[in-house]
Amino acid sequence: MTSDLTMSVARGADLIRVPFEEAKGRLAAVYLCAGLSADDANTLAMILATNSLEGLPSHGLHFFYSILKGLRTNRVLAQGSPTLISSFGAWEQWDGARAPGPLNALRMTTRAMELAQTHGVGVVGLRNTYHWARPGYYGSYAARLGFGFICWGNALATMAPWGSTQPRLGNNPIVFALPDEDSPLVLDMAQSQFSMGRLHTTKEMGELLPVSGGYDEEGNLSKDPSKILQTGRVLPAGYWKGSGLALLLDLFAATLANGNTTLDKIENLDNDTVSQVFISFDLAHRMDPAGLQTMISHVVNDLRNTWAGDELSECRLPGDRVAKCRTENMVAGIPVDPAVWKHICDESGTVD
Amino acid sequence: MTSDLTMSVARGADLIRVPFEEAKGRLAAVYLCAGLSADDANTLAMILATNSLEGLPSHGLHFFYSILKGLRTNRVLAQGSPTLISSFGAWEQWDGARAPGPLNALRMTTRAMELAQTHGVGVVGLRNTYHWARPGYYGSYAARLGFGFICWGNALATMAPWGSTQPRLGNNPIVFALPDEDSPLVLDMAQSQFSMGRLHTTKEMGELLPVSGGYDEEGNLSKDPSKILQTGRVLPAGYWKGSGLALLLDLFAATLANGNTTLDKIENLDNDTVSQVFISFDLAHRMDPAGLQTMISHVVNDLRNTWAGDELSECRLPGDRVAKCRTENMVAGIPVDPAVWKHICDESGTVD
Repeated sequence: MTSDLTMSVARGADLIRVPFEEAKGRLAAVYLCAGLSADDANTLAMILATNSLEGLPSHGLHFFYSILKGLRTNRVLAQGSPTLISSFGAWEQWDGARAPGPLNALRMTTRAMELAQTHGVGVVGLRNTYHWARPGYYGSYAARLGFGFICWGNALATMAPWGSTQPRLGNNPIVFALPDEDSPLVLDMAQSQFSMGRLHTTKEMGELLPVSGGYDEEGNLSKDPSKILQTGRVLPAGYWKGSGLALLLDLFAATLANGNTTLDKIENLDNDTVSQVFISFDLAHRMDPAGLQTMISHVVNDLRNTWAGDELSECRLPGDRVAKCRTENMVAGIPVDPAVWKHICDESGTVD
Repeated sequence: MTSDLTMSVARGADLIRVPFEEAKGRLAAVYLCAGLSADDANTLAMILATNSLEGLPSHGLHFFYSILKGLRTNRVLAQGSPTLISSFGAWEQWDGARAPGPLNALRMTTRAMELAQTHGVGVVGLRNTYHWARPGYYGSYAARLGFGFICWGNALATMAPWGSTQPRLGNNPIVFALPDEDSPLVLDMAQSQFSMGRLHTTKEMGELLPVSGGYDEEGNLSKDPSKILQTGRVLPAGYWKGSGLALLLDLFAATLANGNTTLDKIENLDNDTVSQVFISFDLAHRMDPAGLQTMISHVVNDLRNTWAGDELSECRLPGDRVAKCRTENMVAGIPVDPAVWKHICDESGTVD
C-alpha cells in the first residue's frame, strides 16, 4: 500500500548516520556560499534534510550536488524568483525563473494554499522550473497545515510507453495528501513500478525485485535489477495504466503551466525545465471540518484492524513509512553515503 | 497505453448488433415509463447507448437494468434532482438526492465547467449519488467542449489493499481528459489491473490474462480468470500503487463531497450512495489557447512515430480504442447480449 518511493531508503551497512540538525546546517552553508539568500539556503536545506530524515536519501542529501552543480553552471539561478504570468481567478500560471526546483515548489504550494483560502480551491501551474526533489514533501507540508493537496509534474523521458520500446515518457510523479492527526496521509507515486534508487539498492544487495520491474535484453519482463538497469527499460506501474497516466500528467502539467512537455525536453536541450501543478483545497471551508479527522481516522483504523495478512505483509498505509523513518532517524541520525557526506562537509567547511 | 476499461468490449460471437439510434430510443422509452422526465430519459439513454457505442457495453446497454431496478425499488429516485449544499467560490458541494448516477454526473460536469468559466477552475464534490456508469463519458463530454477535466469517485469495497486479504477498497476510477482535434484524449482507469468485465470475457473465451490479475485459492498471483473470480481477490494495478491510489481517491472524494466513504457503504446498508469529484479547467482562459492543440498533436504524433514496437503491440493512446469502436459500431451497430436486448425490447414495447 506504500509508494515504492520511500522504499529506496538506504539499507546498506555502508551508510553512516549524521544528526538531522547538522546536515541541515551544512547544507544551508553550502547553498549560502553558492549565492542563495540566507532564507532560501535554509529552506532548501530543510527540504533536503527532511527528505533524508523521512527515508528518501536519493531525494535528500544525495540530491544536494545536483542542485549545487546547477547553480555553479548557471543552469539553475540562485537569485531566480517565480513571477506571476497570468491569473484566472483560482488558477494562476507562474514562471519559475529557473530558481532551484524545491524552492519554487514550496513557494507555489504556499501560493495554491493562499488561492484556496480565497476561492475554496487554488491551482498553480508552474513552468520553467527544475526537479523538485521529493514531491511528497509539499503534500506533507500542505496537509500539516490542514489543506487537501494534489500535485504532479513532468520529467525527462526515461520510460517507454506500454507496448513501445522507445523511452518517450517521463516517470511523472503525482501526490495526493490529506491531513491526519499524527502524520499526514501522503501518497507520493511516480509512474514506474520501481524507482531507479530501488533498482540500484536491490542490485547492490544481490537480490531480485518482488515483482517484474522492467525488461531484459531479450525484451522479456524481468525481476533482475541488473538486467533492467542494462536496458534502462523500466516498467510502468500497472503496465498500460501507469503508461497512460504518465502521458496525461505530462500533457496536463504542460497545459496548466503553459510550459514544457517531456517531448520539449527531448527536442530542446537549451531549455530542459519542467512543468508542475499544485492544487490545494481549504478544508476549513468544508461544511463539517470537525468531521474530517473522524472520517479519516475511522477509515485508517478499519484498514489496520481488518488487515489480516500473513506475517510478512504488515499493514502499510501511505505515509506510514515516512512517519517511521522520521521517528527513527531523528534519534539515530540521517543515513547518508559516506562519500556524499564527505562532499557536503568539504563544501560547507567548518560550520560546526 | 489504453485503460483496460475499454478492453471489456464484447468480443464473443454470441453478441448481436443493434443500431445506435434504435438502442437510444428504446432506452429512453424504458426510462420514461419508469418515471423520468422526457429530457432526463433521453439524456440517460444517450449516455448508456454512447458507452456501448464506444466499446464498453458493461457500462452501456448491459447496465440498463441496474438503473431500472433501482428506480422501481425507489432506491434511485426518478424525480431526484441535485441540490447545492454549500459554495466556497470555485468549489461547491452538491447532494445528488439519489437521482440516477449518470444524470447527476453529467449535471455536475456541466456545473464544474460553469464554475471554471468564472474562476478558471471549477470543483464539484457530489454526495448521495449512485454509479455513474462510465466516468470517461463525462471526460469526453467536457474535453469536446474545450475543457480540461478530471473526475474520480469511490465505490463499494471489492479489492483488498496490497498485502491484505480483506476487500476494503473500492475499485475507484479516475479520469483525466484533454481536448484533441479528432477525438479527446481520455484516460479512464479504475484501480484494479483488470475490470470484472475483462475477467469474465477472458474466462468465457477460455484464455489467460496477459499478466497477473488477482489471486488463486492458495493466495498466489494468477493469470487464470476462473481462479481469480473464485476468490474475488482482484489485483490492484501496480500492486501497492493502485492500492494506495484507491484509498486516497476514496478519502478525497468523501472529503470534497462531504459524503460516504467506501467504509460507510460497508457499515451502513441503508445508505449505499457514493461520493464523486468533478474538476474542470477553462482552457480558453489559458494564455495561449491556439498553442494547446499544437502541443497535444505534437506529443501524440511523436508517440505514434517513435512507437517502434513489434507487430503485436500497435500504438494505443488513451482514447484510441473509444474512437475506433465509435466509428466501427456506428456503422455495424452496437454489440449487445441478445438476452439484454430482448429485455430492453420487452420493457420498451413497440416504440419503432
